[in-house]
Amino acid sequence: MKIGIFGGGQLGRMMALAGYPFNLRFSFYEAAQDCPSAPLGQLYGDKDASQASLDAFIASADVFTYEFENIPVAWVEYIAAKKPVYPSVKSLAVSQNRINEKKLFQCLNIPAAAYHEVHNQADLTQAVAVLGLPLVIKTTMGGYDGKGQFVIRDATQVAQAWSELQAGAPLIAEAFISFERELSIIAVRSQTGETQCYPLAWNTHYQGILSHSIVPAPQVSPQIQAQAEQYITQILHELNHVGVLTLELFQTLSGLYANETAPRVHNSGHWSIEGAVCSQFENHMRAVAGLPLGVTDELRPSAMINIIGQHPNTAAILAIPETHLHLYGKTERAGRKLGHITVTASTYQALQTRIAQVAACLPNKMALLNH
Amino acid sequence: MKIGIFGGGQLGRMMALAGYPFNLRFSFYEAAQDCPSAPLGQLYGDKDASQASLDAFIASADVFTYEFENIPVAWVEYIAAKKPVYPSVKSLAVSQNRINEKKLFQCLNIPAAAYHEVHNQADLTQAVAVLGLPLVIKTTMGGYDGKGQFVIRDATQVAQAWSELQAGAPLIAEAFISFERELSIIAVRSQTGETQCYPLAWNTHYQGILSHSIVPAPQVSPQIQAQAEQYITQILHELNHVGVLTLELFQTLSGLYANETAPRVHNSGHWSIEGAVCSQFENHMRAVAGLPLGVTDELRPSAMINIIGQHPNTAAILAIPETHLHLYGKTERAGRKLGHITVTASTYQALQTRIAQVAACLPNKMALLNH
Repeated sequence: MKIGIFGGGQLGRMMALAGYPFNLRFSFYEAAQDCPSAPLGQLYGDKDASQASLDAFIASADVFTYEFENIPVAWVEYIAAKKPVYPSVKSLAVSQNRINEKKLFQCLNIPAAAYHEVHNQADLTQAVAVLGLPLVIKTTMGGYDGKGQFVIRDATQVAQAWSELQAGAPLIAEAFISFERELSIIAVRSQTGETQCYPLAWNTHYQGILSHSIVPAPQVSPQIQAQAEQYITQILHELNHVGVLTLELFQTLSGLYANETAPRVHNSGHWSIEGAVCSQFENHMRAVAGLPLGVTDELRPSAMINIIGQHPNTAAILAIPETHLHLYGKTERAGRKLGHITVTASTYQALQTRIAQVAACLPNKMALLNH
Repeated sequence: MKIGIFGGGQLGRMMALAGYPFNLRFSFYEAAQDCPSAPLGQLYGDKDASQASLDAFIASADVFTYEFENIPVAWVEYIAAKKPVYPSVKSLAVSQNRINEKKLFQCLNIPAAAYHEVHNQADLTQAVAVLGLPLVIKTTMGGYDGKGQFVIRDATQVAQAWSELQAGAPLIAEAFISFERELSIIAVRSQTGETQCYPLAWNTHYQGILSHSIVPAPQVSPQIQAQAEQYITQILHELNHVGVLTLELFQTLSGLYANETAPRVHNSGHWSIEGAVCSQFENHMRAVAGLPLGVTDELRPSAMINIIGQHPNTAAILAIPETHLHLYGKTERAGRKLGHITVTASTYQALQTRIAQVAACLPNKMALLNH
């Protein structure tokens, strides 16, 4: 079976590495010839995203999936009319639009920030009046790694916020949630409706980019894990989702709040390659290929640490016990995700020691210094 | 860094899958265009093994290794004069010749079967007189999966044994060792002389082919594990070996006896992809690339079950909890290794149950029925 993947970044690369053992083969819709997935399959796609390149891609594989959600819904609809695409158009349409996401959370009674749609500056002024300050303004589509966001802390900033983000309108204004920490839960649903959930990850960001995740998130009660599993399972079934889905959450003093979803494998789940019985990548491939799901239990406490902008010394990292290095084959550039490091240990305490050792080796320590 | 691998079978394929996360790239010296490694790198080599194909292969990579030991020592010497090759010529020359192996065991005081070199039928008659019956006759080079062997149980079989094996002479006659079970230990040595040993595997064969391995081998005392580690570490240092090395052992009532070595990753170590902190494939890549070694501890009891001759139903296998399927992209043929299944569990008892479930799904149950 050949899998066609939209996008040829590191997520596609890790999907392919997980899929080869099932004899899956891959093609990628990606214009960049030097992309991380290039050595693992055939590349299609050109800079203009021509119809011909899309048709050639469709002809190249049996089943399709995507590694990023910022692809036109129309394309996925076009493919879906001819061949199976997982996750479905519905999952994509919801996840790539923050207003659709919020409506989904409301519909399923999943707590989330109060919000207001913003089509012009007057809407923004009204949002401040209704939701109070501080207020988080986001583009409804296309934002990632903290881009396309503005926090209004003072009513005088309304004009500036509108000016900076209006190109991305419609916008969404969200009431600020005072949270203890950010968590994420990753789950997978098969073509037969079977679901499996990974343990909650505790995510720490730095300048809008994920710095590191610790899994299972420490000090999570069974009730909190169960609550998160209930939310994501509701979403999976509501969307008739097939494949991996991620739900980012805020943990507050009054419980969990949904932040956003991603209809795909997620940076906060990279620990699962070594830390779980079956990784998010293998499980996504199982779901897309119509196979039964793998066990999502953690083997031991794990951390995922992103390598951003500059590569560390490979030998120094691998000299630390129970570290695994995943490089994506990218050149260095400020703010770019070049790879990640997984660290495992038999106890959280040992894990902390190893995280500190890794931090000492990283040129860009992100949020690890405060750890 | 680009790694050139002699051979493009499943071992090369799994080395490449383990090496991609370090940004390693691969070329393979392999004439079969549809070999298991083909999708993961560039193929060199032709049916005639021409000098030109060898030179092109040498030009294609920075460091070299091999996935099978039946390659001419002269080739490895030829490469070694130009670029690094790990393991070294010395490791290859010893492992590919049973007489050299036996001499190594003697030199290091590692118990092994008494043996006699056989160049003609008269030598064979003398071997029977000196070593007694039954007597195991093997070609000194090139045998695998029980091929190139003859067991003389009665002195009248001498002529038949010589007739069947003389094409492979010189032969080696080995005193029969009455063993309880077959074990193997896999270890790895880095370019700086660091070593790591995996836990002993308990191997069960069927018609000369490895059926399955259970790791850690149950009922192994710490003394037996330590003894095996001492033997293989002696061998690693004596050969100045870099990379993974395997030592097959017989467990007898009077302790461990060395059977043979393989200067490479081994079928009885495939469990380590999911069952160990760092797999034999990743560790081999680390050693060959000049990196520090990974931790070889097991995460939980594991079994490796070979898929021989016929493929099982993929979905049926993956529906069993904690199973992982590794297919090699080969067509079906009697006696051919098509893939393997790793099963893990938190206890040996749960592992036995899962092994029985896997056996029920396999067209060729090998030795699993007697399990």
